[in-house]
Amino acid sequence: MNEETFYATIRELGARYRKRDLSPVEVTHALLARIERLDPVLHAFVTLTADRALADARAAEEALGRGDGRALLGIPVAHKDIYLTRSIRTTGGSALLADWIPENDATCVRRWREAGTVLLGKLMTHEFAFGIQLPGHRFPPARNPWNLDHIPGGSSSGSGAALAAGLVSGATGSDTGGSIRGPAAFCGVVGLKPTYGRVSRAGVLALSWTLDHAGPMARTVEDCAYLLQAMAGHDPADPASSRAPVDDYLAPLARDIRGVRIGVPRAYFFEGIDPEIERAFEVAIETLRRLGAEVRDVQIPSLHATHSFLLILMAEAFAYHERDIRHHPELYGDVLRERILTGALVTAAEYTQAQRIRAQICREAAGVLREVDVLVTPTTLKPATPFTLAQDPEFGFPKSNMPPFNLTGLPTLALPCGFSSSGLPLSLQLAGRPFEEGAVLRVGHAYEQATTWHTRRPPL
Amino acid sequence: MNEETFYATIRELGARYRKRDLSPVEVTHALLARIERLDPVLHAFVTLTADRALADARAAEEALGRGDGRALLGIPVAHKDIYLTRSIRTTGGSALLADWIPENDATCVRRWREAGTVLLGKLMTHEFAFGIQLPGHRFPPARNPWNLDHIPGGSSSGSGAALAAGLVSGATGSDTGGSIRGPAAFCGVVGLKPTYGRVSRAGVLALSWTLDHAGPMARTVEDCAYLLQAMAGHDPADPASSRAPVDDYLAPLARDIRGVRIGVPRAYFFEGIDPEIERAFEVAIETLRRLGAEVRDVQIPSLHATHSFLLILMAEAFAYHERDIRHHPELYGDVLRERILTGALVTAAEYTQAQRIRAQICREAAGVLREVDVLVTPTTLKPATPFTLAQDPEFGFPKSNMPPFNLTGLPTLALPCGFSSSGLPLSLQLAGRPFEEGAVLRVGHAYEQATTWHTRRPPL
Repeated sequence: MNEETFYATIRELGARYRKRDLSPVEVTHALLARIERLDPVLHAFVTLTADRALADARAAEEALGRGDGRALLGIPVAHKDIYLTRSIRTTGGSALLADWIPENDATCVRRWREAGTVLLGKLMTHEFAFGIQLPGHRFPPARNPWNLDHIPGGSSSGSGAALAAGLVSGATGSDTGGSIRGPAAFCGVVGLKPTYGRVSRAGVLALSWTLDHAGPMARTVEDCAYLLQAMAGHDPADPASSRAPVDDYLAPLARDIRGVRIGVPRAYFFEGIDPEIERAFEVAIETLRRLGAEVRDVQIPSLHATHSFLLILMAEAFAYHERDIRHHPELYGDVLRERILTGALVTAAEYTQAQRIRAQICREAAGVLREVDVLVTPTTLKPATPFTLAQDPEFGFPKSNMPPFNLTGLPTLALPCGFSSSGLPLSLQLAGRPFEEGAVLRVGHAYEQATTWHTRRPPL
Repeated sequence: MNEETFYATIRELGARYRKRDLSPVEVTHALLARIERLDPVLHAFVTLTADRALADARAAEEALGRGDGRALLGIPVAHKDIYLTRSIRTTGGSALLADWIPENDATCVRRWREAGTVLLGKLMTHEFAFGIQLPGHRFPPARNPWNLDHIPGGSSSGSGAALAAGLVSGATGSDTGGSIRGPAAFCGVVGLKPTYGRVSRAGVLALSWTLDHAGPMARTVEDCAYLLQAMAGHDPADPASSRAPVDDYLAPLARDIRGVRIGVPRAYFFEGIDPEIERAFEVAIETLRRLGAEVRDVQIPSLHATHSFLLILMAEAFAYHERDIRHHPELYGDVLRERILTGALVTAAEYTQAQRIRAQICREAAGVLREVDVLVTPTTLKPATPFTLAQDPEFGFPKSNMPPFNLTGLPTLALPCGFSSSGLPLSLQLAGRPFEEGAVLRVGHAYEQATTWHTRRPPL
């Protein structure tokens, strides 16, 4: 098994399994060895589940022998450690839950299990998807495989690092203000924040009920589509879960993007942008045009509402953590504790006004998405942050291109669009209409196939 | 035109119009004379629109002459004075808006106008649907036609009083915590709070966005069905407006109620109840059984959440009024100002927790409504409050049977079910599944037709 096998796509792995060219048990053994070699430096995993992985792999092998044709059969995955896993420690990256062993799987964990995946373990997350891990924290932070002195992004930090390092083929993430897309961007992988309500959050630790999204991360757009297919769908256990029918997310990838109307919201998304990212973005736009898309500028004036986003996030995070943080303040990291307690100061009037501004943004975005099919922006304003800067408690919440799509709940994809001069990945963000994941995956896939960014490997 | 004509139903009026036995202009003149005689004591009207009413009546008469068959053609109505009316003063019962003349009709006002109704004027409301009118207020409170020393209920006080006194055949109301059902109960008329999202609130002054409902008030269930039919339906101008299809609300009234499953939530709704109301309620249950309904007890444990209701109401009311009350505190009544400013103290965490409790109530109610078709309770715990008590600023917010159905958004009908020994009306509350207004109207109509409560008249 050569190095490239660790970067095989889900479809390639499945094809080789079915040619008997490779077996899930063989892949699992090789991955466990690779994790043992690389993870002491990367810290992508909080918990490795070697026995479970081998048992899953053997079961997959038997199923393959019976001719079972499921796309995810034998595909190695891991879960962000805020997804509850039955009989497997689920820490939330926190001291509070460091030894907690849930009795039930999160809905998404169950669905991926039922799809035949191989579970390698639990992946690092920022503390409760909201803190930052300072030196000395019980769970040391994951590192960026492209440059160990830089963060892999957060809060789905382990998911981004594990995918970029070829340790898993798919991972779950969660995204309240960019926690799927940010790590995807910083690690040069693909992340999809589905439409609000498309993927169940039952059994995923909450941060902010009205902003939280669960979704898949992978190395290619097609892999994301396979993983989404096995996660999407109504779940009565998540009150916000939608009953909208689930589409076939693979089918749109077969179509080219001639005539697709793409809007570039010029204001807001380019304020404070790194010049290298701006150049990469303009080249990406030209690529999309060359592929036949109609690209035009659009306006969504209310998007400058970062303040509303933070008010909603802070208030809901405090409401969720209030009881625990009162009883066990010492089990929260200093940065996280201060962030959460700040939410106690938000008044209901501020909160409801923020939700009203949010409704206005949703109306404006819906208006623009009557004129275009997909919006495109840079995912982040800068490449991966150095640890020296990210661990400064004063770093706070810099302006971000991602929260507008948590406020609106629109399906949003992040995928590689180049590299900085220092070798760090850059990323494109595509957003579509509610429940039109297929449209963003289609555009993302066409762009990805026309470029070669997803074939580059980090220097491990 | 005899006294009984003022109490004719919408169908009776229409039939007489079409037999040329009566004309809209004749009815309008008679009503204007009756209002002139009775309203100086009742104060049901804030603004009388005699010229407009006569113009509407003449137009209706012409349309009748052309064979126009619309059910509401020539039917005399008036609007609660928080519904915006083009070129007609809309005060909200407040000094702040005492001289405000809107440029556009509320959606419901427009729809009733387009249905051919005759607009007699604007009806008294508690100040911004939330205050109480103490002696000396610019707009004196409406009085209860059954006993002038008692309140007609609020905040749709003028709507209840005008209907009971035979001054209009239909009126709009709005219901945030019972403001349609309370006046219907205290005045012995019928009020329907439709499902949240069923009737547009565009152009209706807000009190609490997530609790406010617009709906019809009338003297019979059938009249309510006619009026709802002309109000219901999607309106893009109200962000909460539903796209659920509009049913035929008259058709279900033709069906008996044999086999209809009715649930009585015994806890909560009977705590603090007046013994006369409890007796009337048990007699009503027997009547429903006699009509063929299956009546059983049910449990909705979380309904004891009055505190959540008040937190949401206070917080949203403050958010809505914040700017005006800062700039013009003197234009708010003392009681209203204190109520609104209290909302400034609600934190976002309290607000979101209240919304979570609300979601739990909704789940429990949905569960019960899988077992039964309709819920029945007493509408109020006591008959109409004496002014001496209601105007005591310490009276506050007594426990009420109505807010649970604002929290859940379920369609809820209030209709007469008897009289107290002192001659004050008593009322039955029926609630159904979302968008099943037809089911509650059907049960209400069957009950009403089997009793004679709606044929009693106040001593005017």
